[in-house]
This record gives sequence, C-alpha cells and structure tokens, in this order.
Amino acid sequence: MTSDVTAPDLSALTFAVLGGTGPQGRGLARRFARAGLTVVIGGRSAEKSAGVAAELSAAIGVTVTGADNLAAAEQGDVVLVVVPWEGHGELLTSLKGALAGKVVVDCVNPLGFDKQGAYALEVEEGSATEQAAAILTDSTVVGAFHNVSAVLLEDPEVATIETDVLVLGDEREATDLVQALADTIPGVRGVYGGRRRNAHQVEALTANLISMNRRYKAHAGVRVTDV
Amino acid sequence: MTSDVTAPDLSALTFAVLGGTGPQGRGLARRFARAGLTVVIGGRSAEKSAGVAAELSAAIGVTVTGADNLAAAEQGDVVLVVVPWEGHGELLTSLKGALAGKVVVDCVNPLGFDKQGAYALEVEEGSATEQAAAILTDSTVVGAFHNVSAVLLEDPEVATIETDVLVLGDEREATDLVQALADTIPGVRGVYGGRRRNAHQVEALTANLISMNRRYKAHAGVRVTDV
Repeated sequence: MTSDVTAPDLSALTFAVLGGTGPQGRGLARRFARAGLTVVIGGRSAEKSAGVAAELSAAIGVTVTGADNLAAAEQGDVVLVVVPWEGHGELLTSLKGALAGKVVVDCVNPLGFDKQGAYALEVEEGSATEQAAAILTDSTVVGAFHNVSAVLLEDPEVATIETDVLVLGDEREATDLVQALADTIPGVRGVYGGRRRNAHQVEALTANLISMNRRYKAHAGVRVTDV
Repeated sequence: MTSDVTAPDLSALTFAVLGGTGPQGRGLARRFARAGLTVVIGGRSAEKSAGVAAELSAAIGVTVTGADNLAAAEQGDVVLVVVPWEGHGELLTSLKGALAGKVVVDCVNPLGFDKQGAYALEVEEGSATEQAAAILTDSTVVGAFHNVSAVLLEDPEVATIETDVLVLGDEREATDLVQALADTIPGVRGVYGGRRRNAHQVEALTANLISMNRRYKAHAGVRVTDV
C-alpha cells in the first residue's frame, strides 16, 4: 500500500468516544490518548465517564476527560460510537443535532449470542453503519474498528496490535481521516474497505473472529494481504 | 495455530470441481492437481469440461479429467461448488442424489455489481453455504475458498498465495478435511472460521476485497492474526 496523499493532521482535533466506559471504547480511548490525541470519553452518566477517564489518565499518564454522551458529542470534532447495539439507534437519534457537520465513526457490531456462540443480527438498514447514516443525515458516517480485540486494546502489556482496521465510507476525506486515526495505534493499519453498503459483513465478521478465538484460544485479528 | 490432530489423508480421494471451467474453479483445480490430488473438472458441457481439463493438464504436466457436472459429482468424494450464484440452487437440487453422503464445499459468493462496484446480495437462506445445506440434506456442507483471487490461482508465475481460507461448517471432520485441502496450496492456510450460520459475511467480504483491489490496485487476500 502506497500513500499518495499527506496524512491528515489529527493533532488539532478532539476525539469523542461515546460508550467509552465499556471495554472496547475504553481500549480505543487508551490507545488514541497514548498516541497523543485529545480524547473525551462519553457515557450515559457524566460521573461514571469522569471516573473512567480519571482512572485511565492515571494509568497512562496522559489526561483524558469524561462527560455524558451529549456533552462528549458536542466536544468532539470526530465522534466514535462504541455503544451496545441495543439502544444504538435511539442514542444517535437523540444526538443528531450535536453530531451535525461532524465525522461519526460507527464501531458497533450487531451480534447475538447463544450456546453455539456469536452470530450476526439482521439490521433493517443493512448494518449499524448504515443505520447511523440513515439517522445522522447531517453527519459524515464512517464504519471502522469493528474487529479489534478489546482485550488487546486494554492490555498495557500489549505494545503493538497486529491487525488492520477496515474503514468503510462513501466520502474519501472522512475515510482518509479515519484510516490515519487507525494508524496511530502501533501495529494497526487503516485500510479502505469499501462503501457503507458493504459494512454489514465487516461488522458481522466479528462473530467469526469470536469463533476463531474459541477454537484457537486466540485474539484473532485480520490483515489484508497484497495491500 | 497448533494442530492437535493428524492431517487427513487426501491422497485417496477424488476432488470434483463443479463449475471448474470458470476462472475460480479452473484456478482451484490447477492448484489441487499441482499438489498431487486427483481432480475432475465438472461443467455444464462434458465436451467443454474435457477441453478445459486437457488444456490444464498440458499446462501443468499432471492429468486432470473433465466431465459434465453430474458425472463429476458422481466421481468426486469431495465436491467443490464453484458455479455462478445464478443457478446455484437449481444445480444443487438436480445433483442432490449424486451428492448424498459426500462432503460438499460451497465456494460461491452471492454478489451483485453496479457502477459503484460489488455488493452482497440477500439470500433467503442466509448465505450460499446455508442454501446448499438446506438443499443437500444428505450431504455435509462446508463453506470455503470464498476470498481467494482467481487471478492469482490461475497465474503460473505465482508460486505462493498469501491468504488464509476461512472454512465454515458444523461438522469437525469435514472442516478439518477442507482445511487440509486449503493447506495444499502453497502460502494458503485453512483456518476454521465458524459455523455455517456465519458464512454469509465471509462470502460477502469478497465485495470488500473487490473494493480494495480497485483502490489499491491489488489482489487483496485475508490473513487471520494470532492464529
């Protein structure tokens, strides 16, 4: 993969992580903050978010702030959505105004779980990313960070994570930005993965990775070859 | 990935490739034959299949035979289905008896194409693999070889192909067999990818790889990390 453009400058931007109090969101916030980015953690409760942010700041020696999801969405220039699938649509609907004009990165995997493991849920709009795009008509919605292990993201002993992040979107400037964001995590590479209409399978692939994790006792990730 | 079982012995088996006259089927037949396996190419016309088989045999210096799809299905111990999505269900219905008691490896990607590239088609049964399983109730259906580039498979200059083959199925003996089959292609590794109900996203991921091929001028493949 050769780059024909200058990497976007992320240093002047604030990255909000909605659902940043859960393992995946916390893990992404940790990695972005360690990379020197300005990060605000959003959650349902401002108090809880502030507590998680303070704990994380102490652990990594870099200041991360916390707020409720609305305040975090307002503060963020780029807003990552890392909330449970249940309530995804409702939350985004409530934040539509705050997210207008911003790049919104949907990281949500609509999965179900039963005795046989994980499986993909059907989504009326096709995928979480497309649901976000259908609701947030004044934002630029990108799908990304679906297949990165929360365990690895949160593990302070893990210096590099050997995985690619597939970035899905229809607007080149936004997908370039999110690829650059993925690139800030050591070992990770942001790779353009197609348009939003092809987000479903990348979200759903997480079910397969969970099956592999069981079978091989691993934290499986994905690398794209020849790119 | 460490193996706790002896690799299945493929040398006594005949591998039939239905739709073996198309690029993907021809490419798989080439690689399996070069690995020393017994391969029969199936196609709609026995004559055309015999012609493709003769051409392939001359090119690689190993005998591959050709037959119509029914005869190939009857000859195969393991039968790969590499036909276009249109007609997939009809063909399998017509071969149900011939395929009874056999391992059937579905390699079909239900994709549509328009000006914006490739996209996943909706499949009533969930995926091509699940459609095959719904029809072939007396066979053991495994999904595999969805994401391997036909261009690379067919290129005699390409010695090794850097990709994993995700193998999807509910019967361990059959998935182990198909993983071993994938392993015969230099560079390729067969990896268990989950149950049949999680086949859709692996089939559909081919649309994303096609998007990446366009963007990066590549023949993108997938490697699973930490496995």
